[in-house]
Amino acid sequence: MLKVGVIGCGGMGRDHIKRLVERTQGATVTAVADMVDQLLDQGVAIAGSGCKKFKNADDLINCPDVDAVFIVTPGFAHKDALLSAIRAGKRIFCEKPLCTTAEDCLEVINAEVKSGKHLIQLGFMRRYDKGYLQIKEAIKSGEYGAPLIVHCTHRNPLVPDSYTTEMAVHDTAIHEIDVIHWLVDDDFVSAQVLFPRVTGAAAAHLKDPQIMLLRTKSGICVDDEVFVNCKFGYDINCEVVCEDGALKMAQPSYPDVRKGAKVATMIDTDCFVRFHDAYDAEVQGWVSDAAAGVINGPTAWDGYLAAITADALVRAQKSGAIEEIKPAQEKPAFYN
Amino acid sequence: MLKVGVIGCGGMGRDHIKRLVERTQGATVTAVADMVDQLLDQGVAIAGSGCKKFKNADDLINCPDVDAVFIVTPGFAHKDALLSAIRAGKRIFCEKPLCTTAEDCLEVINAEVKSGKHLIQLGFMRRYDKGYLQIKEAIKSGEYGAPLIVHCTHRNPLVPDSYTTEMAVHDTAIHEIDVIHWLVDDDFVSAQVLFPRVTGAAAAHLKDPQIMLLRTKSGICVDDEVFVNCKFGYDINCEVVCEDGALKMAQPSYPDVRKGAKVATMIDTDCFVRFHDAYDAEVQGWVSDAAAGVINGPTAWDGYLAAITADALVRAQKSGAIEEIKPAQEKPAFYN
Amino acid sequence: MLKVGVIGCGGMGRDHIKRLVERTQGATVTAVADMVDQLLDQGVAIAGSGCKKFKNADDLINCPDVDAVFIVTPGFAHKDALLSAIRAGKRIFCEKPLCTTAEDCLEVINAEVKSGKHLIQLGFMRRYDKGYLQIKEAIKSGEYGAPLIVHCTHRNPLVPDSYTTEMAVHDTAIHEIDVIHWLVDDDFVSAQVLFPRVTGAAAAHLKDPQIMLLRTKSGICVDDEVFVNCKFGYDINCEVVCEDGALKMAQPSYPDVRKGAKVATMIDTDCFVRFHDAYDAEVQGWVSDAAAGVINGPTAWDGYLAAITADALVRAQKSGAIEEIKPAQEKPAFYN
Amino acid sequence: MLKVGVIGCGGMGRDHIKRLVERTQGATVTAVADMVDQLLDQGVAIAGSGCKKFKNADDLINCPDVDAVFIVTPGFAHKDALLSAIRAGKRIFCEKPLCTTAEDCLEVINAEVKSGKHLIQLGFMRRYDKGYLQIKEAIKSGEYGAPLIVHCTHRNPLVPDSYTTEMAVHDTAIHEIDVIHWLVDDDFVSAQVLFPRVTGAAAAHLKDPQIMLLRTKSGICVDDEVFVNCKFGYDINCEVVCEDGALKMAQPSYPDVRKGAKVATMIDTDCFVRFHDAYDAEVQGWVSDAAAGVINGPTAWDGYLAAITADALVRAQKSGAIEEIKPAQEKPAFYN
Repeated sequence: MLKVGVIGCGGMGRDHIKRLVERTQGATVTAVADMVDQLLDQGVAIAGSGCKKFKNADDLINCPDVDAVFIVTPGFAHKDALLSAIRAGKRIFCEKPLCTTAEDCLEVINAEVKSGKHLIQLGFMRRYDKGYLQIKEAIKSGEYGAPLIVHCTHRNPLVPDSYTTEMAVHDTAIHEIDVIHWLVDDDFVSAQVLFPRVTGAAAAHLKDPQIMLLRTKSGICVDDEVFVNCKFGYDINCEVVCEDGALKMAQPSYPDVRKGAKVATMIDTDCFVRFHDAYDAEVQGWVSDAAAGVINGPTAWDGYLAAITADALVRAQKSGAIEEIKPAQEKPAFYN
Repeated sequence: MLKVGVIGCGGMGRDHIKRLVERTQGATVTAVADMVDQLLDQGVAIAGSGCKKFKNADDLINCPDVDAVFIVTPGFAHKDALLSAIRAGKRIFCEKPLCTTAEDCLEVINAEVKSGKHLIQLGFMRRYDKGYLQIKEAIKSGEYGAPLIVHCTHRNPLVPDSYTTEMAVHDTAIHEIDVIHWLVDDDFVSAQVLFPRVTGAAAAHLKDPQIMLLRTKSGICVDDEVFVNCKFGYDINCEVVCEDGALKMAQPSYPDVRKGAKVATMIDTDCFVRFHDAYDAEVQGWVSDAAAGVINGPTAWDGYLAAITADALVRAQKSGAIEEIKPAQEKPAFYN
Repeated sequence: MLKVGVIGCGGMGRDHIKRLVERTQGATVTAVADMVDQLLDQGVAIAGSGCKKFKNADDLINCPDVDAVFIVTPGFAHKDALLSAIRAGKRIFCEKPLCTTAEDCLEVINAEVKSGKHLIQLGFMRRYDKGYLQIKEAIKSGEYGAPLIVHCTHRNPLVPDSYTTEMAVHDTAIHEIDVIHWLVDDDFVSAQVLFPRVTGAAAAHLKDPQIMLLRTKSGICVDDEVFVNCKFGYDINCEVVCEDGALKMAQPSYPDVRKGAKVATMIDTDCFVRFHDAYDAEVQGWVSDAAAGVINGPTAWDGYLAAITADALVRAQKSGAIEEIKPAQEKPAFYN
Repeated sequence: MLKVGVIGCGGMGRDHIKRLVERTQGATVTAVADMVDQLLDQGVAIAGSGCKKFKNADDLINCPDVDAVFIVTPGFAHKDALLSAIRAGKRIFCEKPLCTTAEDCLEVINAEVKSGKHLIQLGFMRRYDKGYLQIKEAIKSGEYGAPLIVHCTHRNPLVPDSYTTEMAVHDTAIHEIDVIHWLVDDDFVSAQVLFPRVTGAAAAHLKDPQIMLLRTKSGICVDDEVFVNCKFGYDINCEVVCEDGALKMAQPSYPDVRKGAKVATMIDTDCFVRFHDAYDAEVQGWVSDAAAGVINGPTAWDGYLAAITADALVRAQKSGAIEEIKPAQEKPAFYN
């Protein structure tokens, strides 16, 4: 049994507690932490009465009853918790982003490398989605030759007014940034953003939709339609065009319904429904990998690459030009 | 130019006049006939002012300006017009049914055979539908082995109160009766009808839906769901299960529309829209075949087989048992 | 933790041990039984060294370390194990069939009723398949009106020569017998079997494909194409035609692949792959229901109904007629 | 009967002669012209013996037996034939391109405007394809709001070694250039080209695939994947993302075939098969419009816009930058 401490009992944190308790084999939640009493109590209510309560992340991290920690706090609090958990030698599952700046990411990376232990897994759950896994396997089979182009859509029914043009990168495209890099096993080298005509459904300050263009080292071109007020659904598509075939990701299965002169199938409207199984598989994978002390999911280095790619896209939003993506240091051999 | 005389200027007749005039190569409508003045005038209005008018089918048939006739009158009037046209040696396109009784069909057949000329084509337009033709070609390719089972649906949005349980055979299933016999190139030997729970949308006297079961000489089993108040559309499906593969007929092409948490495509609601191109191809084929003096479409013998199959299904509706289908005479070599 | 003892360590038994150990929350395998030493050892190897070994089902059943039993022996051994476990008051998961005769099923049912405790769940895993569950939910929503017809296919790539015409009922159609009865919440009252032309791929003694026809109390007509040498895949389809819409079950999700002038998606070829998640959900459900002492899955009575329906279909295979299905006793109120 | 003279009896010219003769209502081919005797004879063989033969385009254009001309010569010969036919006041169907330079296009346009008669229709047949027409109608319905993004693919199985990187614009993307401009009823204002990793199947000098990016006045962003050695088929896709729904163009209908653990449907491999019906409808439309003396298809101005858009894309291929698209003169009111 992996004894897990969960830092952060907001909506996402409680979701993870529930997942660990009810749908994950081989883990128990032995401790939860939150600065807000009410959230802390809600966390304990799900985790069970045997679970310890902490107001402070560090105390939880250093509790002997905790083998591994979940960091589900707001992004700005990640860095301190990560460094503290690395010092304590505890296994870490950290929700995205790794840190809020590329520099902080590097500091965490250097600490992990120095510790000599593979500790950090980042919460990019799409890598655990069956649809992407099937495409990844097909590419790896070699049957379709090298990938040349990837077409993506990331459509959301609607966003609140607080959602900004930059958030289309940091909160939305960030998922394609990680999952496509992993899917084609290649790093991004440049970024560009197109701003099409704006939908009437967007808030006055928001440019929506956007088309994000990325290029990898080997020359794969990725286009990602990010449309967060598309109204009709949470619609995630991915097509990989290879030298000898094109692979379109499967959609979630719903019945074909004939009614009203139409045959229709459902589109999800909620990302937690759409990726429900991926979240479960992600956490189960992290727990199952604990025994072997390995990280098979996204690493801190992947978190850094996502950060510098997002930074380039935000620059590109402003400049209208093609922006370079270049890590400030070589990838440590530790992460190979 | 094939000079065509059209007998019957009701809705279907006028449709054919329009088709011959506007969308058929190599034909002109030189004469129209109808007992009702008003319909006759409507027919002429479409055919053009040069067109002759007749109150009487025989006069049209024997008019020297008429090479070939279209019979689009009610079924009970078919027999006399057919016999008259055979006597005149004129090429005939006859809307279904050939005649209203199997005996009358045989009388017409014997007259055609005696004339020594292939004159009659019957209006089973589905044989000209691209969907069925693709399946027919696939079967003939041999790639899928022998057909074993055919699943069909014949769904209609709704029918008027005058529609009876027997009409589900004579007016509806009659299309599958002919097209499936042609598709698998085999004759039916027995018939059975199942009556499922009745839809609330049916008139009190009507059993709807029904499942018609047919068996061919070689043992192919056909099931045809006839559901004429299905509400949602005119939905024609056909799947042929073969020894080495299953073939599902293509549906008409409409866009995939994402809206309201659904991705949907349209189902037709009108048989004349659904089979628009098949009607055109059917008539064009008949006109184009005229030069060679051949009938490539459904023949009078096919009309007879459809009649005895329909009779058996109606008997089966009443008996609840499996009813035999047996022609009263051998197929004349003339039709091979 | 539910302490489970597994009786029968053949392929299916070991599969269940692995599932309980690796993919089920809240259960441990504390004991396994098999008459064959080698299988017993294989079972223990998966269950873990702390697990007890028994040569004899009764000893396992009565072991105090066992809260609940899995019966995964050949069908003929089910009855004794079921009665013994009922006597011991232990919760039971029994693979299908309940017993090999309808009479034995009733004996078990009467014993369970007499015990006053809901103990037996039968291994019809399809009720836990997402595809069927979505259809069930859609029907229950009332949006589509009453179900009138259900079209099913149960296609298998191929079967060994030992597979007989009767096994098409007992081993194959048995799944539709249970799942459709549950899906439309209605009991079958009659059965008929059609034998189409036989595929060249079938063994000489085997009639394949077959079409099984069932009718429910409310008049729903079910047709099930059972084709066990279809070659092309394990292809399970289900369409429920309702008064106000038709619902076609979703298929497993695989990518759309463009290659070689085709766009194709995969069909499973193995029932354990096709229903992998259903098996897991079934066992998880049974374990999770233990705390509340309820049986939400198929009951012993469902097992009895499946048995008498299968018997009627086998009679229908021989008679060619419509055979009545009638329970020898009323459904005990206990099962409502 | 529209008396048509066809200039150019190469493959495409003979195709048009056959189409006019066999599948078009209301037209006859009264004259054909070609400099090459052998081609001329082949043209006459299809058109019929009554047809006049000319070695010279001008003689055909001025022949009193010719009401209207088809220009199916190589592009460089279009300008002279167009100007000559305008002088003669004859109706013109001109295969793409209008002329080989934007300047020549303007010269032709000015001549047509001066003539005061709508004479020229350009051979962009996609506007007559049912798939695009359905999308156009859906957009016009207003049900989906304004179009914001258009995703296209133009995939070809393979091209000969003589095909150059520039031809991806002039011979391939040219179709999307016209049809998308028409579909969204908007003009392009800028162009960019991305060069992804090159497929191993392309000739050494060819950059394949390419992604062409276009922006319209109202801000609609169009991306067109041009991949001319994709191997798997002639695969034309178009999705229009609107403010309130996304519309994906229907594909040609082929059966769903279950075989070999796959369910597959065909992709065309030949553009003349894919757009067979569009070619027929295009020519029929042009013939049918003759009576009213109108041009409902693509005009000379559309030909000019296509030319300047193509020029900008070729500049963009070389510069790697976003290139402006700007007509050298205002659109003449004549073309509104």
